[in-house]
Amino acid sequence: MPPASRVTILAGGVGAARFLGGLVRVVDPARVTAICNVGDDFAWNGLHVSPDIDTVIYTLAGIEGEFGWGLRDDTRTVLDAMEALGEPAWFGVGDRDLATHLTRTARLAAGEPLSAATAVLASARGVASTILPVTDDPHPTMVVTAEGELAFQEYFVHRRASDTVTGFRFPGAEAARPAPGVLDAIAGADAIVIAPSNPFVSIDPLLQVEGVRAAIEAARAPRVAVSPIVGGQAIKGPAAAMLEALGHEVSAFGVARLYAGLVDWYVLDEQDAALAGAVEALGMRVHVTDTMMTGPERRAALARSVLSAIGAIDA
Amino acid sequence: MPPASRVTILAGGVGAARFLGGLVRVVDPARVTAICNVGDDFAWNGLHVSPDIDTVIYTLAGIEGEFGWGLRDDTRTVLDAMEALGEPAWFGVGDRDLATHLTRTARLAAGEPLSAATAVLASARGVASTILPVTDDPHPTMVVTAEGELAFQEYFVHRRASDTVTGFRFPGAEAARPAPGVLDAIAGADAIVIAPSNPFVSIDPLLQVEGVRAAIEAARAPRVAVSPIVGGQAIKGPAAAMLEALGHEVSAFGVARLYAGLVDWYVLDEQDAALAGAVEALGMRVHVTDTMMTGPERRAALARSVLSAIGAIDA
Repeated sequence: MPPASRVTILAGGVGAARFLGGLVRVVDPARVTAICNVGDDFAWNGLHVSPDIDTVIYTLAGIEGEFGWGLRDDTRTVLDAMEALGEPAWFGVGDRDLATHLTRTARLAAGEPLSAATAVLASARGVASTILPVTDDPHPTMVVTAEGELAFQEYFVHRRASDTVTGFRFPGAEAARPAPGVLDAIAGADAIVIAPSNPFVSIDPLLQVEGVRAAIEAARAPRVAVSPIVGGQAIKGPAAAMLEALGHEVSAFGVARLYAGLVDWYVLDEQDAALAGAVEALGMRVHVTDTMMTGPERRAALARSVLSAIGAIDA
Repeated sequence: MPPASRVTILAGGVGAARFLGGLVRVVDPARVTAICNVGDDFAWNGLHVSPDIDTVIYTLAGIEGEFGWGLRDDTRTVLDAMEALGEPAWFGVGDRDLATHLTRTARLAAGEPLSAATAVLASARGVASTILPVTDDPHPTMVVTAEGELAFQEYFVHRRASDTVTGFRFPGAEAARPAPGVLDAIAGADAIVIAPSNPFVSIDPLLQVEGVRAAIEAARAPRVAVSPIVGGQAIKGPAAAMLEALGHEVSAFGVARLYAGLVDWYVLDEQDAALAGAVEALGMRVHVTDTMMTGPERRAALARSVLSAIGAIDA
């Protein structure tokens, strides 16, 4: 494999983080850049929480929690004490996780952009890859439901994704500018990967930032999306329910259609091999492989399989 | 003793909290109101910290830390994790203490005034007395030094009170209005106590809030100040150094002079009995007693001695 391969990945949360965990076993971690969604960012009691960035950093540091978010074996002294004070504790922040949010908030309060605070946090956790927020500007994802607009964490964590989604709104999109390094990481990549993340609330917010979609369209590197839907189910999260609510086919093909014109390759799980022809008809080449990322070996195998299929590394 | 005695105390941090700890053993805690300084309040990484209010609440709850602030036997998981992330940790926040700051910040973010958040925190800790911030408005104490103006916590905790003080500034004083209950607690009191707190950075900020000084001057109840200086030394904190730097006599008399015209009684420690004549010449009656508050028994004895001297309870 060419260790010099520069891989840039458009990343949401857990699915992207797991793919990245495999990727850095296959290529030089220092040549990997993750462009991360900030649409889930929110203020938790005054603290700036960046759930997707944290999930990516924790996973690459090998310290992620059991369910993909938070820190493994974290304690909850603070949260328990807050509950004793009568505070609702729907957002489960562990003590050491809290240190991340406090550190980020301190740096933002001191005037640093989110990208600089993110670089410090990644480096402090020993992460060699470049972790970039897609933008340093506020760029929240609002989930439009029958009950009204909800901030993403309100919809996803507090209300457990139980509302029927009718659409999304990105009120910060017009003013958001790409964070330093984002467009360069796309233009200079040897491979661009759209992670197996939610197309509506992880990937689309990235594409909404000025210049990002155009940079991907203009990139010379092969562009590949890994389906987040396998056998008609989302591996994690509300992607399948969102596809259905918004009138899309609930399948890997339904997602592929959203990426038509944006990527050269689409990766289907073996379970969905029968969809290959339909996806190819969208103008993409198809790679069929095992996309289930249970454990580090399978994650590395997926990354290797995807990168070699698109010619970014030797098979 | 008349259990109905309503005692209102002007309170700074540790000294006031210890006096209060004695007071609630002598009178009905539910009839005690503490009007607390908010000049030390500051934003710690996005969280609203109210050091004096917390010290008063923790002490009345019997859970205060060894040195009078923070919580006893608190852990420091979060702070250690922040230090590991490279964050300076000059302000020593324990995990359960952090829950207080998060809860307060959450309530302020939800639109509650500081007084309401304070009431919730006091009640949750089982404190029966009324704990009031002097104002719900921002009212910081700025310490003027040769190095420029410093916020109080920056001066006191971060720089360890090592700068020479040339004065104070209260930029919020003009706009600050008394919190609900403050003026009523003064007007309706059977005794008004100025706690043995720093006259410049604990008591004066209270008097700077519109209507507070006038309410004390107009009060029908006996007004008594307990000297924070004993034998020319401050029991705790920088009061003695501030007296000296600002050209005052470094003694209980030096503080008494600051309260001339405001109080009817002044409490001297037995060590300072020789100052009684000079203090009386300022127009105050003097009560000499043991003012050292080492341990709950001595604290209660001081409160009993002070209240009976001024006729607020039977001897």
